[in-house]
Amino acid sequence: MAEIKVGIIMGSQSDWPTMKEAATILDELGVVYETRIVSAHRTPDRLWDYGKTAADRGLHVIIAGAGGAAHLPGMMASKTRVPVVGVPVQTRALSGVDSLYSIVQMPKGFPVATMAIGAAGAANAGLMAAGILAVSDPALAARLDAWRTALAASIPEEPTDD
Amino acid sequence: MAEIKVGIIMGSQSDWPTMKEAATILDELGVVYETRIVSAHRTPDRLWDYGKTAADRGLHVIIAGAGGAAHLPGMMASKTRVPVVGVPVQTRALSGVDSLYSIVQMPKGFPVATMAIGAAGAANAGLMAAGILAVSDPALAARLDAWRTALAASIPEEPTDD
Amino acid sequence: MAEIKVGIIMGSQSDWPTMKEAATILDELGVVYETRIVSAHRTPDRLWDYGKTAADRGLHVIIAGAGGAAHLPGMMASKTRVPVVGVPVQTRALSGVDSLYSIVQMPKGFPVATMAIGAAGAANAGLMAAGILAVSDPALAARLDAWRTALAASIPEEPTDD
Amino acid sequence: MAEIKVGIIMGSQSDWPTMKEAATILDELGVVYETRIVSAHRTPDRLWDYGKTAADRGLHVIIAGAGGAAHLPGMMASKTRVPVVGVPVQTRALSGVDSLYSIVQMPKGFPVATMAIGAAGAANAGLMAAGILAVSDPALAARLDAWRTALAASIPEEPTDD
Amino acid sequence: MAEIKVGIIMGSQSDWPTMKEAATILDELGVVYETRIVSAHRTPDRLWDYGKTAADRGLHVIIAGAGGAAHLPGMMASKTRVPVVGVPVQTRALSGVDSLYSIVQMPKGFPVATMAIGAAGAANAGLMAAGILAVSDPALAARLDAWRTALAASIPEEPTDD
Amino acid sequence: MAEIKVGIIMGSQSDWPTMKEAATILDELGVVYETRIVSAHRTPDRLWDYGKTAADRGLHVIIAGAGGAAHLPGMMASKTRVPVVGVPVQTRALSGVDSLYSIVQMPKGFPVATMAIGAAGAANAGLMAAGILAVSDPALAARLDAWRTALAASIPEEPTDD
Amino acid sequence: MAEIKVGIIMGSQSDWPTMKEAATILDELGVVYETRIVSAHRTPDRLWDYGKTAADRGLHVIIAGAGGAAHLPGMMASKTRVPVVGVPVQTRALSGVDSLYSIVQMPKGFPVATMAIGAAGAANAGLMAAGILAVSDPALAARLDAWRTALAASIPEEPTDD
Amino acid sequence: MAEIKVGIIMGSQSDWPTMKEAATILDELGVVYETRIVSAHRTPDRLWDYGKTAADRGLHVIIAGAGGAAHLPGMMASKTRVPVVGVPVQTRALSGVDSLYSIVQMPKGFPVATMAIGAAGAANAGLMAAGILAVSDPALAARLDAWRTALAASIPEEPTDD
Repeated sequence: MAEIKVGIIMGSQSDWPTMKEAATILDELGVVYETRIVSAHRTPDRLWDYGKTAADRGLHVIIAGAGGAAHLPGMMASKTRVPVVGVPVQTRALSGVDSLYSIVQMPKGFPVATMAIGAAGAANAGLMAAGILAVSDPALAARLDAWRTALAASIPEEPTDD
Repeated sequence: MAEIKVGIIMGSQSDWPTMKEAATILDELGVVYETRIVSAHRTPDRLWDYGKTAADRGLHVIIAGAGGAAHLPGMMASKTRVPVVGVPVQTRALSGVDSLYSIVQMPKGFPVATMAIGAAGAANAGLMAAGILAVSDPALAARLDAWRTALAASIPEEPTDD
Repeated sequence: MAEIKVGIIMGSQSDWPTMKEAATILDELGVVYETRIVSAHRTPDRLWDYGKTAADRGLHVIIAGAGGAAHLPGMMASKTRVPVVGVPVQTRALSGVDSLYSIVQMPKGFPVATMAIGAAGAANAGLMAAGILAVSDPALAARLDAWRTALAASIPEEPTDD
Repeated sequence: MAEIKVGIIMGSQSDWPTMKEAATILDELGVVYETRIVSAHRTPDRLWDYGKTAADRGLHVIIAGAGGAAHLPGMMASKTRVPVVGVPVQTRALSGVDSLYSIVQMPKGFPVATMAIGAAGAANAGLMAAGILAVSDPALAARLDAWRTALAASIPEEPTDD
Repeated sequence: MAEIKVGIIMGSQSDWPTMKEAATILDELGVVYETRIVSAHRTPDRLWDYGKTAADRGLHVIIAGAGGAAHLPGMMASKTRVPVVGVPVQTRALSGVDSLYSIVQMPKGFPVATMAIGAAGAANAGLMAAGILAVSDPALAARLDAWRTALAASIPEEPTDD
Repeated sequence: MAEIKVGIIMGSQSDWPTMKEAATILDELGVVYETRIVSAHRTPDRLWDYGKTAADRGLHVIIAGAGGAAHLPGMMASKTRVPVVGVPVQTRALSGVDSLYSIVQMPKGFPVATMAIGAAGAANAGLMAAGILAVSDPALAARLDAWRTALAASIPEEPTDD
Repeated sequence: MAEIKVGIIMGSQSDWPTMKEAATILDELGVVYETRIVSAHRTPDRLWDYGKTAADRGLHVIIAGAGGAAHLPGMMASKTRVPVVGVPVQTRALSGVDSLYSIVQMPKGFPVATMAIGAAGAANAGLMAAGILAVSDPALAARLDAWRTALAASIPEEPTDD
Repeated sequence: MAEIKVGIIMGSQSDWPTMKEAATILDELGVVYETRIVSAHRTPDRLWDYGKTAADRGLHVIIAGAGGAAHLPGMMASKTRVPVVGVPVQTRALSGVDSLYSIVQMPKGFPVATMAIGAAGAANAGLMAAGILAVSDPALAARLDAWRTALAASIPEEPTDD
């Protein structure tokens, strides 16, 4: 049975419609993952445990999505050396600019690989995770190359009215 | 000996020039406090311990200052019911808008009493802490009233060129 | 009969759908409150009277919500030493950034404990008020702890598709 | 002796370097004015009195400058029907965007004639006050026309290297 | 027959739903006005003529609304000494921040009395125009005072659920 | 003698340090130009005349720089079909975001070819003007190609510490 | 058969509803154009080829629309001296401010003639392209003048309620 | 001799003072890297070649820094599956918000692991690169853990005035 290499975590159930774009990409690329709700504020001890055990459990990448004062990705980066990919979830009042700033403006020592706001960012988090794994997994690298080639091939020459 | 009622914590030594404005106000009002460096990312366990013991140690208010992806105030609010007053420290590239959004945009459940960006905000954090303590401390309430009256009395009638 | 400890005030009737989130939280925590419409601009004398009598009437916290050039929280903070918790109401053109800046950027002397923009901020204002009261009310502190524990317990382990 | 028609008020002494641009313009146009420090937060009763007596004292325009959570212009507009011209003073962290939003985003009922951020805005406040007075003062209208003509005449045809 | 004292101009027909708020206020206050479409870019000569003849035609205030690169209010202020009140119309992509900056950030010499973005700003433009006229029209001043008193009187004491 | 094909205009002498970057580029490319101060607000008639005669005088491109409520480029685009290239000059309070929005957000009918804020934008305005002229001037096209090739060739392979 | 002088390119099919406003204008002005989907990221080689052959194929102007990290206009400007007109397409989270900054803030050497965000910007891109071609095409210049005259003539004198 | 696993590329020499923070971190962690100037706009063919050969040359991570319309990281991500870490360099007018948006808002398919604006972001890019390599390099993982432990240990308990 394939080992879980990627953890997709998010601050709340309401982030799932965004974050499942990451899961979809990993499915397409044949990468095994787990999904968890880990709220930095409501379940900080869960965050602690997840971070402390991540490397030993064999996780190679953690994808973390959150909105507003989005502390989850940065706090996870503080607890583990495993690369953290952050997804700013779009918010109601500030459209995700709050999420983006809270995730990307990390101090020296604790990088979060920040993606675009919203669903495109979540999909790209899946691709970034795959790209990181592909560094030491030639078969995945080949599947990733094929995915990219297929994307390019899907673009028509000219726009059409419908 | 007076009990320590207020903790002033900050993410790094570089926040101290801002945060000592809070300490100055508490000195003026005769409120006893402690100062600690507690980095959400570099010393998360210190943050955990500080938060878990805050109420039992008799802290009534925690003033937390941080800049950038300023997770300290919000994470502290997640670990303790003691009211947390947050001070967004001004930053180089984004002038503290990043700090402000990271501190103020907290999700339901974990309020941070956010102050203005920079030194005025830190001074006001001291006043807010005093105001909270004054709810159950009539002597402090009287000193706070006097401080406010003196502030009003210091305003001249007309501007001068000096 | 329980004494009213918290006043929830707002600039207009249109702020109520937001501000009742604060009332709901106070209801859940068993904190007695009053609700008033106090417009800084349309009823400045009402604001004056409310502020001048707040401490003597036994109010311990004032929650003030307003939108746009949201002067109510700051003007109330100018009139009373009772801690003021400010809620920036979301606005049409500027999404509440105008409300946020008008409430949070107070000058030295007059802190407003600013919450997030909108409904989450209003709920948190209720929690902040409870946290302030809990400093000198152990029974309320226990109820607040229980509320927080229940919130954490409500978070499922994994996201679900519906 | 000429009657005082314009009041120039500001939140603090530190606003005077900006606000004296308004005074300079009024001097150039021969408009008599007074200058006062009226802090919305530190001296709210002074604001009240100024506003209540403004019309009866014969003031025709009030120029009000303030920075940050700049409540002075809007609160003055709430206390008097005399037209209020607002000047957003530049601030350290937010460059005066906070001042601008707090002054311009007034609710229906209480207009503030908002000018540009900083010194140019203060000078224009003087010109706007003069323009308002000129509606019923043909001699001032002529002086204002002359001022405007002189400004246009001062523009060279081509730029020069120094 | 009453003389037209106020001109309400706007950049296009699409600004009218916003700008008619100004007209409604002037109707309520018994101020006679005219409405015109004057596009700074599409009908610059119309703008020129309107500006050049405004004072001689007896206009005392010009209310100008525009959106986007909203040049109409500022260009009108360049052509006439008659006070210009500017209304930033809300826009699709930038929500009227573009309109606001284009109207308020005028250089020294050419003030535009800028109002809030959108309908509230338009209503306030009507009130500002009335306030300017009231400087030399005691009867209008009385009607304006009554309007303001009625507004204050319309505010209920407490919010209601519907 | 070479015909003047490009007009470089600007709102005030203070824009020249920025705008001379455009002149420098045109000098390097051998394009003949004139420089004028044309203030949209202070010298609107000069703007009118410049715009009305531009095409007949043989101008092929107009480069217009302005800051703040930067109306010059857009108003020039309203007066002539000659392509207008706009340069947002950096400003003190709003860093040129005001200039950028005022120049770029033009309504349908009156495009302004907007460049980056500040000196790089002014240099690029010169290059854009040259590119437009090069459409019908093969010799200039060759010089422009050479300029571009030289720019690419000037880039070293590796960064150096000084 | 008329030669194709203008290329309208866009990053994806989803940009077409915006970009066809450019095509409509060119149709109205009798300018022959082609439309292509050229994604900077998905089809970079297509971008390369398009840019390298543009001048030789006789293209005189390239209109490029893109959203988000909108690299297409700037990369095209890097590959060809043919003037590039950029259209920032409106985006979901950031409303096109991301598109605008990515397109307009080009470094010295590679100007992009940036238009307004969205459909008005696309229409103006068509007009800018026509204006550039009109520099050396008197017949088109006449049609463009007529188009502009008709636009001005279509503006009614007064707004109407429907 | 150690193989080069990381490429640090940047848009111009002027980015080096920022980007050398990444190099310093890699030096501290014993990661071998190369540094190159690769301008997306001035040397697009160099970008092409770098991207096409990156995987075959054995690069495991590419760190790319750029400012303004910062196309380098995103275009590199388009040309190679090797993970790209992007550093938004601070800019004069827009403080690096332009760089940030241009780097982070990538469309689906081409993730860029975006870091904070400026020097802290560059240092974190080095750490992120090390974290990615550490996934398959236990010795480096141990060095990275030690680096992180040392960072935490360097934080004093209390702030000092020094």
